Amino acid sequence: MASNHELAVEILQTIPGYVSEFQFVFDSSHININMVTESIAEFERTLVTPNSRFDQWLLGDKDALTDQEKDGYRLFKLTGCAGCHNGPAEGGQAYQKMGSFNSYDTTHPSIGRQAVTGSRSDRMRFKVPTLRNIELTYPYFHDGQARTLEEAVDTMVWVQLNRKFSPTGNAKAVSFLKTLTGDLPQIILPILPPSGPDTPSPQPFE
Amino acid sequence: MASNHELAVEILQTIPGYVSEFQFVFDSSHININMVTESIAEFERTLVTPNSRFDQWLLGDKDALTDQEKDGYRLFKLTGCAGCHNGPAEGGQAYQKMGSFNSYDTTHPSIGRQAVTGSRSDRMRFKVPTLRNIELTYPYFHDGQARTLEEAVDTMVWVQLNRKFSPTGNAKAVSFLKTLTGDLPQIILPILPPSGPDTPSPQPFE
Repeated sequence: MASNHELAVEILQTIPGYVSEFQFVFDSSHININMVTESIAEFERTLVTPNSRFDQWLLGDKDALTDQEKDGYRLFKLTGCAGCHNGPAEGGQAYQKMGSFNSYDTTHPSIGRQAVTGSRSDRMRFKVPTLRNIELTYPYFHDGQARTLEEAVDTMVWVQLNRKFSPTGNAKAVSFLKTLTGDLPQIILPILPPSGPDTPSPQPFE
Repeated sequence: MASNHELAVEILQTIPGYVSEFQFVFDSSHININMVTESIAEFERTLVTPNSRFDQWLLGDKDALTDQEKDGYRLFKLTGCAGCHNGPAEGGQAYQKMGSFNSYDTTHPSIGRQAVTGSRSDRMRFKVPTLRNIELTYPYFHDGQARTLEEAVDTMVWVQLNRKFSPTGNAKAVSFLKTLTGDLPQIILPILPPSGPDTPSPQPFE
C-alpha cells in the first residue's frame, strides 16, 4: 500500500489542475498523502441522506409517519431489532454473529470477521449494516441472498431473534423500514483535470 | 439486438419509478423501445460544450484569442487541416484515409472502415474526429499512440499533408487547438429508481 500511495502522490503532482487545487486548499505546492486522504474524507462527509420521514417524525412532525409505520417501529423495538440496529445510522456500530439463534443457510464462502482476525469466535460475524435507505440498497445480506425487504425481515427475525412475524407483522416492519429513506446527495459528475507533460502513461496490470 | 431491446423494455416495465416517469413524459403506461431511444437521444442533445474561446472569437470578441492563437488558426487553414476538420464540430463529417501522403506507423490491428464495409479501398479509413475539447481527449488517434497535442499535430501534418511544421509552427497550431475547449456539461449523478417486485434478478453473463 505504501508504494501505491507514493505512486498516487507522484502522479497527482504531475497534473497541473490538481497541483493548483491542492495549492488553493492546503497552501502548499507539494502534495502529500495526508492531503489526499483529507480531501477524500471531506467528500465522504457530504455523503449523508438527511430528512427521511422517520427523521421528520423524531423531530416532532407527528404526521410524518402513518399508523402502520408507527406500529412497525414499535414492533422493531419490541422484537429486538433495535438491539443491534441503533444509533443515528440504525446500525453500523457493532459486529454481530449472523445466526445468533438459528443458523443462516447460504452457499456463499464468506466466513465473516474470522477472515480478518483469524479467531474461530468471529466466524460469521459481520458488521451490522445501517438501515438508512435500506429500501434502495437491495439485495440484502453479505451474500445478496434476500431480494426483498419482506424476505430480509423474515430471515433476520428468525436467525437473529428466533421469532416469526405474521404477514401483518412483517408488513408493518417493512413499512417502517421504508420510512428510513432520506434525501440522497446530488453529486455533479466531476470533470477531471487533464494530465500534464510529465504524467506517466497508464500501465495496464498484467 | 431485437431480443435485447425487448428485454430492456420488459425490465423497465417492472420498475415503478420508470413507469411513472414514462407515463409523465409520454402519457402512456406502456413503455416501448422508441420512447427509450427518444429519451436517450434527448439526454445526448444536452452533451454539448459551447462557449469555447474560439466560439467567442467567431462571435465577434476580438480579444478572445491571442495573436499566437490567431496565427495557429491561420496555419490550421493554410496547411490544409481545415480540409477535413471543418463544420461546427471541426470534424466528424467524413471518413478519411489515415496516411493520405505518408503511411501511418502502428502495430495496432485496426484496419478502419474496411472492417465494416469489407472494401479494400476503405483500408485505414477512419471517421475524422471533432477537434472540440481536443486538449482534454488525449491520447490521440484510433490507437492512442500520440500522448500529446504536439506529437499528434506533427504526425497529422506529415501523414495527411506531407508537411513538417517548425517547432514554432507546431506551437502555434497547438495553441489554437487549445482554444477549442468549451464549457463541459454539468451532469448530476442520476439516482436510479429501485427495482419492483417483478424485476428479474440480474443474470451474470457466462
